[in-house]
Amino acid sequence: MNEPLLAEPEPLKNLIQALRRLPGVGERSARRMAYHLLQHDPVGAEQLGRSLEHAVTSLRHCVRCNSFSEIEVCATCASARRDPGLLCVVETPADQNMIEATHGYQGLYYVLMGRLAPLEGIGPEALQFERLLQRATDGKVQEVILATNFTAEGETTAHYLTELLVSEGLKVTRLARGVPAGSELEYVDASTLAWALMERR
Amino acid sequence: MNEPLLAEPEPLKNLIQALRRLPGVGERSARRMAYHLLQHDPVGAEQLGRSLEHAVTSLRHCVRCNSFSEIEVCATCASARRDPGLLCVVETPADQNMIEATHGYQGLYYVLMGRLAPLEGIGPEALQFERLLQRATDGKVQEVILATNFTAEGETTAHYLTELLVSEGLKVTRLARGVPAGSELEYVDASTLAWALMERR
Repeated sequence: MNEPLLAEPEPLKNLIQALRRLPGVGERSARRMAYHLLQHDPVGAEQLGRSLEHAVTSLRHCVRCNSFSEIEVCATCASARRDPGLLCVVETPADQNMIEATHGYQGLYYVLMGRLAPLEGIGPEALQFERLLQRATDGKVQEVILATNFTAEGETTAHYLTELLVSEGLKVTRLARGVPAGSELEYVDASTLAWALMERR
Repeated sequence: MNEPLLAEPEPLKNLIQALRRLPGVGERSARRMAYHLLQHDPVGAEQLGRSLEHAVTSLRHCVRCNSFSEIEVCATCASARRDPGLLCVVETPADQNMIEATHGYQGLYYVLMGRLAPLEGIGPEALQFERLLQRATDGKVQEVILATNFTAEGETTAHYLTELLVSEGLKVTRLARGVPAGSELEYVDASTLAWALMERR
């Protein structure tokens, strides 16, 4: 079914190929999506088309935090109610939202828009670490909190950034590792428990 | 994370909402797709936008087989090398491709673009069964092969269509049920085996 034998109309073929560029979408899902949109939701298809066009043309990166923004400096970075001495480094805007949802952080953010992944060829240049360095050394930032994921790649990124930022005389911290709130020890995996033991306080 | 606390730029918010209309895509995947397109594949995003627009405006349904087509009668239906006495009814264009891939069918097709699903409110009217009836009673069709899926809904559709078409004096057949080619009996599920026994020949 990869190469359909019946001549498919060109616009359908192009749509399926374009949908395949979405992360996690293979030939079969792309086909299902295309059929669905064309058969049951042409209004949704047009809306998606317009949203894509509009997003690509109107969004850029905030010059301060690197997250998506319509304006040069985003609302969060421009806020006077935030502590300019704290800079929290996250991988994605979704992670930034998660930190914000704790209601426990009043500092500013820097969004890497990715993480170091040597196996995929994503190095410090691709992530423009020099921009983070410039941002963190504005003279106001006192502490950089590394909130990259606790995956192999997130950890690698955190280690790399620690060296980079410490050498600039900045205080660098990392989110605490440990037992998740509300969980029973019996169901916590061994490496989490090992970390929780090591970092007991 | 459903309702992000940070003010998201409007075009990003709209894009995420539009992506959620794709089948099987929830808030989290939509967000991941939006970030991916904007950060790593703006060319792909523009291409997808254009493809959507082009597909919606240029595709219609072939008046003969009901599949997607740019022209009034699609290439398959217009082909002189196909047997006009055989009409194979399938649920989707993808199913049509699967039948075609057998290289064992030389007749024509009718694509339902769905199946009866009373629980979802999809009845005979929604699927425009009167169009199939009209197509099947063109005087040339001798046999209608029902190739809907062997799911509860596909079976319901086949039963309904059998009654409808037999009452018009048409010969109606159904794809054979049985043990899949190349499989060992030990690993075939009981109901498939039961069908294979009943329909032994």
